[in-house]
Amino acid sequence: MEEQTERIQENTQEKTEEMKSQQAEEKRKKYREKRAEKEAAEAKQQAEEKLRREKFMRAAIRAAKSGMKKGEVPIGAVVVYENRVVSRGYNRRAEKQLASAHAEMMAIDAACRKFGSWRLPEGCELYVTLEPCPMCMGAALNARVDRLYFGAYEQKGRSLTAALAEANLLNHKTEVTGGVAEAECSALLSGFFSALREKQKAEKAERDARKNSANNPEII
Amino acid sequence: MEEQTERIQENTQEKTEEMKSQQAEEKRKKYREKRAEKEAAEAKQQAEEKLRREKFMRAAIRAAKSGMKKGEVPIGAVVVYENRVVSRGYNRRAEKQLASAHAEMMAIDAACRKFGSWRLPEGCELYVTLEPCPMCMGAALNARVDRLYFGAYEQKGRSLTAALAEANLLNHKTEVTGGVAEAECSALLSGFFSALREKQKAEKAERDARKNSANNPEII
Repeated sequence: MEEQTERIQENTQEKTEEMKSQQAEEKRKKYREKRAEKEAAEAKQQAEEKLRREKFMRAAIRAAKSGMKKGEVPIGAVVVYENRVVSRGYNRRAEKQLASAHAEMMAIDAACRKFGSWRLPEGCELYVTLEPCPMCMGAALNARVDRLYFGAYEQKGRSLTAALAEANLLNHKTEVTGGVAEAECSALLSGFFSALREKQKAEKAERDARKNSANNPEII
Repeated sequence: MEEQTERIQENTQEKTEEMKSQQAEEKRKKYREKRAEKEAAEAKQQAEEKLRREKFMRAAIRAAKSGMKKGEVPIGAVVVYENRVVSRGYNRRAEKQLASAHAEMMAIDAACRKFGSWRLPEGCELYVTLEPCPMCMGAALNARVDRLYFGAYEQKGRSLTAALAEANLLNHKTEVTGGVAEAECSALLSGFFSALREKQKAEKAERDARKNSANNPEII
């Protein structure tokens, strides 16, 4: 009797342990599935957010190109509110001959006018093709821009963008993210400057040729 | 004979030493006089320079007061070139509802227009009654202002003025000097804000009184 009881008990215990182990395995499986789902959702969200930022950066690039057509250094900016572009700006320094006529200033001023307030509503984003100079970073802080996205990095790291973002000057922090559509933004600027150098070289060659022919008229 | 010769020699030596000592004393005297003259000239120059700076700062203070009359926070700025005020500006943020409508921006923009160039001529000075925010400091750098003088200090030291001046962002350094006519500049701002607080207090008291009389009409 006792032996039998023991065997039954052992069997029961084994079965219970097996069940427990199966349940634990299922729980682990569920956990893994949930984690994978969560990771997939996060990756999807990140990919969507990346696409969203790049979409608005492309609007800034289009603005930059409008300036380039007029001979300006191609830098463009847009202000975005509730996922819509509310204002655009491009560098107009050459046209206006104003030190303040940067793309960001144009876009921020236009947004202030649109909202009728120097303080932009909560959630405003600024997209700009090049890392902002301290003037434009300061303007973003003054207007209480919440998030700033830029494309190409200022090459010498002298803009102090991060330090200004962290200084908490107005009890307001503007979150700054660099490198959005960086390749496209950089190519825009480097293309402009290499074309400019080519043009200047060609002009110099022409001037030199004219000078030479003036000095040696018999050659002609 | 030998004794006499010795005495004569001694006398001569003594006289020579006395003469040398006198000459040396005279040289020291002359040196002291020259040093005193130089110090006096330097002190005079410094005093004149102080007066010069204060004179232009008072022009900035007058500009600030023009703004105050229109209900703006009183901050004023002037651009000076070859010891003449070439442009003025005062804070117009409330009127224009633009985050960029700071006194310095107004003055710099006006100076650029006057000279027809985003790059101000060498030797331009900017005077402003309050330590500039990063936007305005950045604009001074962008316009290649050579010297910036401000009156009152930004109280929390968050403007990063010195860091921006030292960053050499555009291979251009703007020399910054704070505390010019500081007492006057500070008094202007603190006076404005204490008057504003008084006004708000009086308005609140009036509102409360009206509310009380509405709640207890029988008292009237």
